[in-house]
Amino acid sequence: MSNAIATHIQLASRPTGWPTQDNFRSEQITYPEPQAGQVRVRNEFISVDPYMRGRMSESRSYVAPYQIGETIAGGAIGRVIESAAEEIPVGSVVLHQHGWSDIVQGEAADFRVVPEIPGLPLSVRLHIMGMTGMTAYVGLTAVAQMKQGDTVFISGAAGAVGTAAGQIAKLLGASRVIGSAGSDEKVALLTEKYGYDAAFNYKDAPVREQLAAAAPEGIDVYFDNVGGDHLEAALDALNTGGRAALCGAISGYNSTERAVGPDNMVNMITRGLELKGFTLGSYLHLAPEFTEKMTGWFSQGQIAYDETIVEGIDHTVDAFLDMMNGANTGKMLVKVS
Amino acid sequence: MSNAIATHIQLASRPTGWPTQDNFRSEQITYPEPQAGQVRVRNEFISVDPYMRGRMSESRSYVAPYQIGETIAGGAIGRVIESAAEEIPVGSVVLHQHGWSDIVQGEAADFRVVPEIPGLPLSVRLHIMGMTGMTAYVGLTAVAQMKQGDTVFISGAAGAVGTAAGQIAKLLGASRVIGSAGSDEKVALLTEKYGYDAAFNYKDAPVREQLAAAAPEGIDVYFDNVGGDHLEAALDALNTGGRAALCGAISGYNSTERAVGPDNMVNMITRGLELKGFTLGSYLHLAPEFTEKMTGWFSQGQIAYDETIVEGIDHTVDAFLDMMNGANTGKMLVKVS
Repeated sequence: MSNAIATHIQLASRPTGWPTQDNFRSEQITYPEPQAGQVRVRNEFISVDPYMRGRMSESRSYVAPYQIGETIAGGAIGRVIESAAEEIPVGSVVLHQHGWSDIVQGEAADFRVVPEIPGLPLSVRLHIMGMTGMTAYVGLTAVAQMKQGDTVFISGAAGAVGTAAGQIAKLLGASRVIGSAGSDEKVALLTEKYGYDAAFNYKDAPVREQLAAAAPEGIDVYFDNVGGDHLEAALDALNTGGRAALCGAISGYNSTERAVGPDNMVNMITRGLELKGFTLGSYLHLAPEFTEKMTGWFSQGQIAYDETIVEGIDHTVDAFLDMMNGANTGKMLVKVS
Repeated sequence: MSNAIATHIQLASRPTGWPTQDNFRSEQITYPEPQAGQVRVRNEFISVDPYMRGRMSESRSYVAPYQIGETIAGGAIGRVIESAAEEIPVGSVVLHQHGWSDIVQGEAADFRVVPEIPGLPLSVRLHIMGMTGMTAYVGLTAVAQMKQGDTVFISGAAGAVGTAAGQIAKLLGASRVIGSAGSDEKVALLTEKYGYDAAFNYKDAPVREQLAAAAPEGIDVYFDNVGGDHLEAALDALNTGGRAALCGAISGYNSTERAVGPDNMVNMITRGLELKGFTLGSYLHLAPEFTEKMTGWFSQGQIAYDETIVEGIDHTVDAFLDMMNGANTGKMLVKVS
């Protein structure tokens, strides 16, 4: 065993509005040889996710803000290259939350060994078979209480959660699934690849108008990844007894203005609507149920996915910024070469 | 049996913004003698309620809008003065939805006989022992899932629903109940008569600041009668897992401007909050449970109430307008002399 030099991407300053390269810095870290109980992991894929923007600010949230000078924590998958922990031998594939780095070393308890399944790329553990897929599943089932025959609207539908949610909704018996996305290419993909019954480009015309046209009978469930005008449009379209799972609000993440709330909250009273915000942390007890369902669907070829892959740890910030700008289709990942 | 001349208050035109006397007119109606199956009722008390403002507009709602030239429908209680229906003899006390009139005549099925209980004024059937009290009960229990030990915030706390909700919350084990109202007299009444632990005048300073000061540890449940800045303040104060029952939004009922939605909807995601709108119609199955509980509390002297009574059918519109302006404490009623 030996020392190792790792590259970590750290928060250099807190972004105001849209983050820039200047808010981050690359640091070389020298690890001594692993102490008893530690492992050293070379990452293969790193996840960049919308929720990370929230942690870059100092405000109260469900997880602590990143500290200046701290490596950006988040999901990653890699392979153990040195081990001083019996339970995790060299060669093991591990998921962890150590985030934006090429090599990371720490206590074995921080790393979760996942089985290598032939034909299953490691990367899907960071999205459709991992937290992203489970977020979509939990949002539709436990949060929004989707029922067979429901009409479902999903915003940010071409993103990692959205592409999963559309397919899961159909597999669970939704009668009609409608999605919104930010380019014509993405819109085409939604109906051609992801089983959406209808989709629109939110940049073409007001969401309210486009959603009303796509759902003339209204919607029963809304899966919100966007917030803002999308949530407002959904509050107009939701039928009596309708339910919304609020998963993300990317439209406002980089705004420095006062967010404009929906002008039609009163619909919630007259139609008995329910809005429920959630983060996956409150639903981890559903992991076995999700894994069983998703493994079944996946093995039967019923799940499509896309990855937008940026190569090289040095391009992690590019990947994050591109993802915030909507440059990805499906899951945005960094492949650590 | 004979003819009768009745005074009915009807909608003359749809209000834009705040209603005025000009939106209503008084009509004399001549009833022939009751036909078989009909009863004639002389009202004793008429209810004027915030939700009626919604029905004066033409927009989609949970009940049909009032039509121009139609008597304003709503809750009333009176006594049968002529009867051609065996099941409802003369002298019976009946609740009905025929609304703003001194005398009304119709099918017996439209009238519900209620027992006269010594010491129980008829008027309370229109509020604390009726729909208003049940709205407060259902909102706290079935909708907001209030638990023992919760801190509860109630807006419009000095109104008919609010005075009931504060007391019920305490009786159900809330550890701390906070209320907002629009005058210092009402605020004093909340803590002195209605068992609120803290109360503030929303006109004194921003609701956000006053609520934060009154609930330094945050709130668990919000019962919303007001909407607007109150809902926004509650979304800041709600603790992780907090729930809000949206019952009314009187702050926006008479606005002709675009309603300003909460600027902090994103809190719903980070804290896993739940907002649920409701109208009593979806919870009528809880009427026996409510009646049992409320009768018990009432008979043990655990329930206080106020009535603001306007005398004379000709002042019904005054009573309605005063209620919309917050001139009432507790339930606003018209006593038909």
